[in-house]
Amino acid sequence: MQELAGYTLFLEKEIEKLEFPSSPSNLYDPLRYFMTLGGKRMRPILTLLGAELFGEKIENALPAALAVEVFHNFTLIHDDIMDEAPKRRNKQTVHTKWNRNIAILSGDVLFVQGFQLLAKQKSEHLSSLLDLFNKTAIEVCEGQQLDMDFESRQNVSIPEYIEMIRLKTSVLLGCALEMGAIVANAEKEDRRFLYDFGQHIGIAFQIQDDILDLYANPEKFGKQVGGDVISNKKTLLNLKAFDMADSAQRIILNQLALEKDAVLKVTKTRELYDLIGARSACEVHMQEYYSHAMQSLSKVNTPEKSKLPLIALADFLMKRDI
Amino acid sequence: MQELAGYTLFLEKEIEKLEFPSSPSNLYDPLRYFMTLGGKRMRPILTLLGAELFGEKIENALPAALAVEVFHNFTLIHDDIMDEAPKRRNKQTVHTKWNRNIAILSGDVLFVQGFQLLAKQKSEHLSSLLDLFNKTAIEVCEGQQLDMDFESRQNVSIPEYIEMIRLKTSVLLGCALEMGAIVANAEKEDRRFLYDFGQHIGIAFQIQDDILDLYANPEKFGKQVGGDVISNKKTLLNLKAFDMADSAQRIILNQLALEKDAVLKVTKTRELYDLIGARSACEVHMQEYYSHAMQSLSKVNTPEKSKLPLIALADFLMKRDI
Repeated sequence: MQELAGYTLFLEKEIEKLEFPSSPSNLYDPLRYFMTLGGKRMRPILTLLGAELFGEKIENALPAALAVEVFHNFTLIHDDIMDEAPKRRNKQTVHTKWNRNIAILSGDVLFVQGFQLLAKQKSEHLSSLLDLFNKTAIEVCEGQQLDMDFESRQNVSIPEYIEMIRLKTSVLLGCALEMGAIVANAEKEDRRFLYDFGQHIGIAFQIQDDILDLYANPEKFGKQVGGDVISNKKTLLNLKAFDMADSAQRIILNQLALEKDAVLKVTKTRELYDLIGARSACEVHMQEYYSHAMQSLSKVNTPEKSKLPLIALADFLMKRDI
Repeated sequence: MQELAGYTLFLEKEIEKLEFPSSPSNLYDPLRYFMTLGGKRMRPILTLLGAELFGEKIENALPAALAVEVFHNFTLIHDDIMDEAPKRRNKQTVHTKWNRNIAILSGDVLFVQGFQLLAKQKSEHLSSLLDLFNKTAIEVCEGQQLDMDFESRQNVSIPEYIEMIRLKTSVLLGCALEMGAIVANAEKEDRRFLYDFGQHIGIAFQIQDDILDLYANPEKFGKQVGGDVISNKKTLLNLKAFDMADSAQRIILNQLALEKDAVLKVTKTRELYDLIGARSACEVHMQEYYSHAMQSLSKVNTPEKSKLPLIALADFLMKRDI
């Protein structure tokens, strides 16, 4: 993502500058730790690009960009508790390194700090920013709840799954972009097109994530390849496979779900998915959302040249192998 | 609290009107349940009274009042998880009735709804309201963290304890009042005096809470009398007792902390506290904070008559037996 390296560097420096009080250390040490664990910083980059698209200096959208990143990290801290995840980006999660109560409360305080950052934007934009941010935060919680609900449900349809990832992942990408556009005083219609671009890229990104979980290069992938298969997680890959399987294949898929040998389970499942054509079917879906995103972007009323960084980011997200 | 019954009734009706989506039901059912469990609704009443004190219609401060109540309930849902409390107001807590993950996420979404309510206030007040609300929310989290930290600490001083209850409980009372004053366009100096009134009443209120836990009438008290003693919780009563005890009494206090028979433990501890004079010492403290609160209120530049509802509320809080 060479074209965007400048934005990432700028953001990393600003994230390092975020100040957390020294006391109570059990509340703020986890935040100092977690906020500098890294990551692609994709969401705040979107806010900066959203502002720049309409001719605004990126510095003027910085508080909103940081608010989005802080909010995203808050959701990760709480999600990790709920998912009982021991690691995140190859490092211990907050509830593992400290404890669950500290992770709940540190997450809560980080969430407030997101609102504090947002409140640094000009007061004329505050009401619009707050409305969008609140609506999005609620949708992200709804998405996480649906994801948890799906664990214990037998039949999850593909539209239901897409709606879940839209809420859990994609709306925040749309929100990040639109917040930049709000700061840049963009027209409502353009804001909406930009939001749709982000939302559709987000869905395509999440489908790519589902595919990578099983098909990534183990040497580059930060976590165990096939983790979703091992834990019988419902993903688009899994739902497509069941949807497209014939009755004999469906019996084997159900048997594989009970397989105890993790390596065997992953290898056999991948072979069967390939036979069924589940991966290609997911890639078709992903391409559809990507195209829809590009259509939305093309409707934004700014010079085509101004859109190149957003196109570069979208391409990177689609072609990544991690 | 006869003088304030009208405000309570008005608020209960408005709280009932709060709308939660039907789906995902695991996210919103807990909120429908928890928000109507009752309680004194003391904090939103303070916001309404804060607005009325400066001649504003209470209806105009309603969103801010509801935001405070919603925020308070969010903290209760998360605190109950951290404290592993099975009951709240004689009813099951959210994490007991549903599960811990649902309680984390329902709490998160309720918190956002607090900000959504706040955003309904006029945009000219939004920046001030948000700054105060954010600062307070962070302090409340800090107070909860200190409270948890104290559990595993041997020596907690009385000033440290007072600072903890100031953060955990009192700042929200000050905030609730000042939000009403902001909506009513009160002068900054008056806002500050009113905040101080709330903060000091809050500390007195919490000291009263500590005393009631051991000295309440069991027939009126909603929970087990002596619960703090049984769990060896650090309270002002407990810290004062250790502080004032002679060396022989201190040995007995340490022995009583290990006592397994709950009834015996509570009875013997109460007898010893009385002998030491811990309750009276706490009441002196409580009276000091009450007097300080009244001094702050007297400095607010409005007719004395306008302050009567606030004085009635403060008196009720000090004289309550539940």
